Amino acid sequence: MNPQRLEGLVRDIFVAAGMSAEHARLVAEVLVWADLRGMGSHGVMRVPRYVDLIRAGDLNPNPVMTTRNETAACVLLEADRAAGPVAMTHATQLALSKAKEAGAGICLVRATTHTAALGYYTHMAANAGMAAIAFSGSWPNMAYHGARAAGVSTAPLAIAVPGEGAPIALDMASGIVSIGKLMQARRTGEVLEPGLALDKNGNATTDPRAAAVPLPLGGAKGSGLALLIECLASLVTGNPLLAEALEGTPLGARHRQNGGMIALDIARFVDMANFRREAARLARAIKALPPQPGAEILLPGERGDRAAAAQRDDVRISAAVLDELKAVAASFGISA
Amino acid sequence: MNPQRLEGLVRDIFVAAGMSAEHARLVAEVLVWADLRGMGSHGVMRVPRYVDLIRAGDLNPNPVMTTRNETAACVLLEADRAAGPVAMTHATQLALSKAKEAGAGICLVRATTHTAALGYYTHMAANAGMAAIAFSGSWPNMAYHGARAAGVSTAPLAIAVPGEGAPIALDMASGIVSIGKLMQARRTGEVLEPGLALDKNGNATTDPRAAAVPLPLGGAKGSGLALLIECLASLVTGNPLLAEALEGTPLGARHRQNGGMIALDIARFVDMANFRREAARLARAIKALPPQPGAEILLPGERGDRAAAAQRDDVRISAAVLDELKAVAASFGISA
Repeated sequence: MNPQRLEGLVRDIFVAAGMSAEHARLVAEVLVWADLRGMGSHGVMRVPRYVDLIRAGDLNPNPVMTTRNETAACVLLEADRAAGPVAMTHATQLALSKAKEAGAGICLVRATTHTAALGYYTHMAANAGMAAIAFSGSWPNMAYHGARAAGVSTAPLAIAVPGEGAPIALDMASGIVSIGKLMQARRTGEVLEPGLALDKNGNATTDPRAAAVPLPLGGAKGSGLALLIECLASLVTGNPLLAEALEGTPLGARHRQNGGMIALDIARFVDMANFRREAARLARAIKALPPQPGAEILLPGERGDRAAAAQRDDVRISAAVLDELKAVAASFGISA
Repeated sequence: MNPQRLEGLVRDIFVAAGMSAEHARLVAEVLVWADLRGMGSHGVMRVPRYVDLIRAGDLNPNPVMTTRNETAACVLLEADRAAGPVAMTHATQLALSKAKEAGAGICLVRATTHTAALGYYTHMAANAGMAAIAFSGSWPNMAYHGARAAGVSTAPLAIAVPGEGAPIALDMASGIVSIGKLMQARRTGEVLEPGLALDKNGNATTDPRAAAVPLPLGGAKGSGLALLIECLASLVTGNPLLAEALEGTPLGARHRQNGGMIALDIARFVDMANFRREAARLARAIKALPPQPGAEILLPGERGDRAAAAQRDDVRISAAVLDELKAVAASFGISA
């Protein structure tokens, strides 16, 4: 499908669901960006869920976002349950602006909803000449190391710096496998590798129909990272997600997320042209390593860059996702 | 061995090797801290190597550390090849001081040597009421994902926040297994699990005598994290480590490290008593998860806290490490 047309459709849906044209544009852009880069799990397949969240009152289509706790380098964005892309792009602008002034800027985001592809925001920062670290926390959907149940979220961590061309950009969840991959295996029936997931009773499983809870990346490392992200994003902003959900409070049953963006103004430390030259030199040195048979050595973000180039005029959306999208559009009287 | 006595011995060695009493004390404290917490691989077993680095001219026992690129929230510490504990404790103080003023502070460290246990510095920050993120980069000693050779370092990432008692503190390397574990397996002859290491020819191996290069945590995630840490710590400070080493330049053959410390003043966002209460609540919720058979659910840092409590008066140092330590002491005319 033509990406502009897809973005237009998503925009129309969110305008019909009550968002301003600008907010709807932002959400559509961030979701289609993920599809273009081959991350369908964070793409327009989320639209029906976002609409459900609006209807349930968890996602506020008309948020009044405010800032508080402002210092020279920091600010907290009260996101008022804004769509993740709306809150996180604003948070990135705030962090960049702080970093321009103070050398570094940190914006913490309180009470947003699904942050979508975190890499979008670190790309945005890297394209502005900044180094960026972003993270977000959600409800418990990943096993804590040593536990038979979900205890933390698959909290993602994204880090990006400018490159000679595209940014060098890592966007990783703290799970050994994504929820999206488990859902995909359930559809295809493909047997999972051992060590990826637990079933709903907390037993390790390779059965794609039984796999329910992803295991953390590297055991204690992944669940520790997810726990610390909860501390940074949720406890510092005074909006705990995990404890509320694990205790089974009414608030814990709602869809809520928190996030953060750290930006560092590289040009305050080193000449940007020199930085880009060194980034390219490092990329060349890594690319020159002897590869494993059949393997290609890729830089963080490179696979996504290639997918985006290949899909520039025609983004692949599965028939099932497109049907769902059209059904949501139809529910608002929009013909796709 | 009595930890104070051990620290005294290490201090005496570094004073004899040319350090000031204060710098020698810092190095001894950070190394013994790691031993106390059960991280022998980052403990006093490093002393002979540090002394070698001094003798080779890579570690400067009398560094003249200076700061530059100072902004409201940032500063770069030119470490002048100082011992890692000397540079990193100073960097932590600088980041904390910036964070007190600006809400957040980032200190990047250029040209230090082995940073030792990164968790020491994030503990230091958390004990001062700050959230902290620290990282450090080194020479290529870990396979890059898809490559048959080392391309990145096992770059560690440490994150800590204050807890109700001890900090909640994650200290993780970006490798699936540490170099220390591979060395230990070589000594004991224990067969490795698959997926941990390559041999010197780049082939996957479980043979403890052949394992030479650890694989990255979660494949592309671990090597991507290590690569981005090199970008943050080394390219922003204009002191590239990986490219120099991979290109085989004379500089690349020297022992060099860079690092960074990000501190966030939690009290600027939320009441500290409330933060500590919520941290304790989160800890309780995680501890209440149903455990896997035979497993105990531990918080990040808890194993180390327990080891430190148990070893407070008598730290376990292997006979081999103690012999090496005594030999180094003897080489300076010190009787241990």
